[in-house]
Amino acid sequence: MSSKTDKDTIYKPRPISGFLEWLPEVRLVEQGWLDDIRSAFESYGFCSIETPSVEEVDVLSAKGGDADKEIYGLRRLAAEPGEDDGGRLALHYDLTVPMARYVAQHFGDLVFPFKRYQMQRCWRGERPQDGRLREFYQCDIDVVDMDEVSLIFDAELPAMTLDVLSRLPIGPVRLHISNRKILQGFYEGLGVQDIVGAIRIADKMDKIGEDGVFKALVEDLKMDTIAARKCVDLAKIKTDDTSFMEQVRAFGIDNTVLEAGLEELAFVMLELGHVEKGLVVADLSIARGFDYYTGTVYEAKLVDYPDFPSVCAGGRYDNLVGSYSHHKLPGVGISIGFSRIFSKLAKEGKLELGAKCPTQVMVACLPGASHADVAATARRLRERGLRVERYHEERSLKAQMKYASRKGIPYVWFPANADQPNHEVKNMTTGEQAAADIDAWTPQG
Amino acid sequence: MSSKTDKDTIYKPRPISGFLEWLPEVRLVEQGWLDDIRSAFESYGFCSIETPSVEEVDVLSAKGGDADKEIYGLRRLAAEPGEDDGGRLALHYDLTVPMARYVAQHFGDLVFPFKRYQMQRCWRGERPQDGRLREFYQCDIDVVDMDEVSLIFDAELPAMTLDVLSRLPIGPVRLHISNRKILQGFYEGLGVQDIVGAIRIADKMDKIGEDGVFKALVEDLKMDTIAARKCVDLAKIKTDDTSFMEQVRAFGIDNTVLEAGLEELAFVMLELGHVEKGLVVADLSIARGFDYYTGTVYEAKLVDYPDFPSVCAGGRYDNLVGSYSHHKLPGVGISIGFSRIFSKLAKEGKLELGAKCPTQVMVACLPGASHADVAATARRLRERGLRVERYHEERSLKAQMKYASRKGIPYVWFPANADQPNHEVKNMTTGEQAAADIDAWTPQG
Repeated sequence: MSSKTDKDTIYKPRPISGFLEWLPEVRLVEQGWLDDIRSAFESYGFCSIETPSVEEVDVLSAKGGDADKEIYGLRRLAAEPGEDDGGRLALHYDLTVPMARYVAQHFGDLVFPFKRYQMQRCWRGERPQDGRLREFYQCDIDVVDMDEVSLIFDAELPAMTLDVLSRLPIGPVRLHISNRKILQGFYEGLGVQDIVGAIRIADKMDKIGEDGVFKALVEDLKMDTIAARKCVDLAKIKTDDTSFMEQVRAFGIDNTVLEAGLEELAFVMLELGHVEKGLVVADLSIARGFDYYTGTVYEAKLVDYPDFPSVCAGGRYDNLVGSYSHHKLPGVGISIGFSRIFSKLAKEGKLELGAKCPTQVMVACLPGASHADVAATARRLRERGLRVERYHEERSLKAQMKYASRKGIPYVWFPANADQPNHEVKNMTTGEQAAADIDAWTPQG
Repeated sequence: MSSKTDKDTIYKPRPISGFLEWLPEVRLVEQGWLDDIRSAFESYGFCSIETPSVEEVDVLSAKGGDADKEIYGLRRLAAEPGEDDGGRLALHYDLTVPMARYVAQHFGDLVFPFKRYQMQRCWRGERPQDGRLREFYQCDIDVVDMDEVSLIFDAELPAMTLDVLSRLPIGPVRLHISNRKILQGFYEGLGVQDIVGAIRIADKMDKIGEDGVFKALVEDLKMDTIAARKCVDLAKIKTDDTSFMEQVRAFGIDNTVLEAGLEELAFVMLELGHVEKGLVVADLSIARGFDYYTGTVYEAKLVDYPDFPSVCAGGRYDNLVGSYSHHKLPGVGISIGFSRIFSKLAKEGKLELGAKCPTQVMVACLPGASHADVAATARRLRERGLRVERYHEERSLKAQMKYASRKGIPYVWFPANADQPNHEVKNMTTGEQAAADIDAWTPQG
């Protein structure tokens, strides 16, 4: 750690690994994406909530199954020894746990089914490797209801997610859906003892492959090879309709949990019948690592980047909110890994960058101009709802044009004056300049 | 610190002092305010930037003068002894320092004058007392230029701030402006040795009053009583035009820095001539605590809450960015204490709360309805740009009306069906129900 105590020396800042920061022209695109996502969420009537960036450490660790999460705790740098240093507070690592805590805490003030979206930064104290993000935006939707949450939402949330993502220039997104009960019942039917362990192994199919899963089931879980082979074969089932049911039933495993899972997944697939063919797949390899999922589980991938990890994930949880409340409050949710997607495309140079500012019109201030006229012109255009910069000093036309052009400002306005009784406006794209009525002119396109 | 290790016990969450969290109906209002501020900033062509929530501790401590800021450092809870635990990272406590660091770091990629707005959360590890916020939104605007920044911006920023705040339902806001050079030159002219110390004392006028300031100048700074009296009298000058100049000159102090300060302040006041009378005051009691201000300084207060602390503050700094760069990059900026204002009005019950969700239309699902029809109706209305919730299950009309009414949804839609060949829509405010064309209907108001 370098030190800096002399006010006159210069501390040269450097990027901090895992923390993103964009130039204005990239930020403008990011804002556009976030706006589009928000407006899509709201088009389904979901309400916004925001929770503090911190939770008590006890809240973050209450739900279990996340020993692998790297949590950033806080400490007041100025705390005296023995004083409260903020040590019981930590930055949230996702938006699901804060939402569950929020629902439990504000239970009496919410209308159920509670449908919320939440777009906030999250933090994970990952070791900076493989370009992992330590601060990132997530965009989450969840529905929580009392006692039971309708299976309709298991279909509405992925439909919403696909709708939301179709508004972004990221190419097609394919949603893979399964149901934990299928794995649960299938393993039960096979007589597997450690079902949680088996699900964790199955979840690694992407990373360790078919053979790796087979080996782990046999070696780590002492499963017999016939049963292990069936587990691997189950995970290979992928259909874009409900034909997965027959394929699973062909294994001849009789189990009521398995049957319930098949029925639920079939219901969800049928409800999603309106979605473009091929974008929704019943994919029995999907397991999801978190222990709290109890039914439907989701993952979504960018079709154009098959090797890129999943960009959305989620599922149904029956008991998550129960970590914080005596009420039974099951839910279902999906989280979009916004920064993961955005930074991927930004780094690959796939974003269409435009202007460096939101300005539509720059009001020029030519030598000899009345500053009051320049200011009043800018105010008048602004009153009419336009986004207007006033050039701040008398400088050459060339210097002002260069400024406007470097920032990508589409129009430059020349206020009326003694020599020129009409206002004039120059279109920076076409180069045309013409008289303009300050009370009526509007930008094109 | 309570502990929670058993997954089946309930960890009852409680609010964390100093961290805000709102119910959906309050959050909707907050979002509206934030949207209005953003759109006002953009109407002046300012670009958005966001910086990471953290900076290196060295960056935060580089600018000096903020020993009183309580900084929250990070530490990875899972760090092994000796491992990097994130300890060199800390949450930013304002947006000025991150902006200065950003400008220095991205110098070559920015267009100057660089005009940016930034709306983010900041953190201060305050001891939870007097309702102090430990996490809060600030909304900042700054202009940074190379070598010199035009004095025009010293007037444009407060005009922008007043314009922005006039769009919020917070009553009138009064902006108090002074110039550090006036204090500097006045004290110099009086022969005061410890000018920084004198400015720090003068800044406490609000807290310790006229007598307290007088006493501190005499006792702590060993100023003679005649000089101390003049300092106090200077701070009493408040004019809504440029007449402060004569009042200051009447002290008969001849100093070039003082004169430069008077000229600058007069220029800013004249440039602000278009602002409603009484909302801008040249107020020579304004000093601002930060050492880095070198010229114009601002504070703004809510006229309706005279005892409430200032809600905006800022000023001109010639050397702040220089802490991180060899380039001379002076700037001027104002910060709006968004959460301070919003939480004040929320806690006083002064917010006009409306719906609990953004939904315009709820599509009902009456007993016997075709789910596919309900879903298709919702999709069609959504395609037309409306915000639409689909009621998720067949329940009694009464139950569905109650849900819509509790959430403040203005319209309920009844899809066409075998018994009722027309779509119908009910206005929840008037109670009227009438046939509606799904391809043409629009909500009123």
